[in-house]
Amino acid sequence: MIIIGEKINTSIPSIRPAVESQDTAQIQDIAQKQAEAGAHYIDVNCGTFADKEPELLSWLVRTVREVTNLPLCLDSPNPKALRAALQAYTGPKPLINSITAEKARFDAVIPLVKEYNTSIIALCMDDSGMPETADACLKIADGLINSLTKEGVALSDIYIDPLVRPVSTGTHYGPVVLETIRRVMAEFPGVHTTCGLSNVSYGLPARKLVNRTFLVAAIAAGLDSAILDPLDKVIMSLVYSAEVLVGKDEYCMNYLEAFRDGRLDV
Amino acid sequence: MIIIGEKINTSIPSIRPAVESQDTAQIQDIAQKQAEAGAHYIDVNCGTFADKEPELLSWLVRTVREVTNLPLCLDSPNPKALRAALQAYTGPKPLINSITAEKARFDAVIPLVKEYNTSIIALCMDDSGMPETADACLKIADGLINSLTKEGVALSDIYIDPLVRPVSTGTHYGPVVLETIRRVMAEFPGVHTTCGLSNVSYGLPARKLVNRTFLVAAIAAGLDSAILDPLDKVIMSLVYSAEVLVGKDEYCMNYLEAFRDGRLDV
Repeated sequence: MIIIGEKINTSIPSIRPAVESQDTAQIQDIAQKQAEAGAHYIDVNCGTFADKEPELLSWLVRTVREVTNLPLCLDSPNPKALRAALQAYTGPKPLINSITAEKARFDAVIPLVKEYNTSIIALCMDDSGMPETADACLKIADGLINSLTKEGVALSDIYIDPLVRPVSTGTHYGPVVLETIRRVMAEFPGVHTTCGLSNVSYGLPARKLVNRTFLVAAIAAGLDSAILDPLDKVIMSLVYSAEVLVGKDEYCMNYLEAFRDGRLDV
Repeated sequence: MIIIGEKINTSIPSIRPAVESQDTAQIQDIAQKQAEAGAHYIDVNCGTFADKEPELLSWLVRTVREVTNLPLCLDSPNPKALRAALQAYTGPKPLINSITAEKARFDAVIPLVKEYNTSIIALCMDDSGMPETADACLKIADGLINSLTKEGVALSDIYIDPLVRPVSTGTHYGPVVLETIRRVMAEFPGVHTTCGLSNVSYGLPARKLVNRTFLVAAIAAGLDSAILDPLDKVIMSLVYSAEVLVGKDEYCMNYLEAFRDGRLDV
């Protein structure tokens, strides 16, 4: 399971002032803690600072990279901010979050993917909006994978995000996402799938319960990456446990090691 | 989700003496609590009392049926105990736990299913033992479903149990069970699938974590019944939450009601 640590995001109340004041120590501390907790990428997002986003995202990139060898996930829909971040970036192949099948956005982001040789999260939406069925979602995923590979992007650098929508707004959204994950993983061997967890529970009480249940269901459907809080011990315990159950943890080695290290919520 | 309450079982240390001394009040209390917590069947099992099993199972049947309108799950591999229990039984159609594709066991149990018009849990094992692959498990399930329907058993009265084996003894056992559930539900519409949870985690630390994760993964694969402890609030919360995510809880009504009633672990 490829864990993308989500905690450095200015939509989180405690992060916004830290980025605004360029509080290096606080940001580096959160980056290091996520790395120690098992993240494989550190996501950086300062999308709430519209005009200053390019400058602040570059600062985040330099600040985080100083204290970790992990690659970063550069999280912005703004090509200018992404370019500034990539210019500031050195290190293992970064992940751009994200591209879509919307023509203008695709055309603006794909040059960055190629010029900087990045991996890319591709959201299942196009100019007609967000799909309502797994078939429609698969069609967009298929189009994105075709377009990206034609541009020279390797399958293993593509992370399809089926775009989780709140189940409170449609009973079908859970099955749509789970079926999309299952079919993308079956029909495009080598491609990754990823998603955030929190959107699924919007509008419901006891949201953490729904998010955690969703993570397990998605891993059971084949999800091999997720954008989540690696400092949430319950969430990480479910990741270790689910990986055992889907046969991705040979001899339960990772699970047993996590238990010995006190990293499981028991 | 059809919940089979597992708590009246003499392999549980506190239950054994209660059954041995025929402590009506204690057994009825556990039965009522499981019913209130949302069980659809109350399982009764006194298999640890080899010789006295027929007598004690009949006593359990009468004792539990006195305080609940729920059907019972008569849990024994012993045809004599099952017959005694069925003779003592009145009420909604009971569930026999279980039959297998082993010739002697099939031939001994099928007359009871027919004579007493019961539902039946059918375990995926035959005279060659327990299957190692989903294909082999499906083949046994297919044979069981064919044999049972030929004997006049309705599809909706059949509960296929893929027999969960410990993932600590084979990394493939998780995927085998999940794939078997998915394929049985897809290939035999109308048939139920069921299983116990605890066997999957045998030999691992933090077993409850693995059991709970397994339950969610199995529901995501299509499992529509489980033998579990309905008094475990965490387990029941996962059932409610998972049912939302697989699209089986329209408008999240059951989930919201469980939340309002304080039945969710939040």
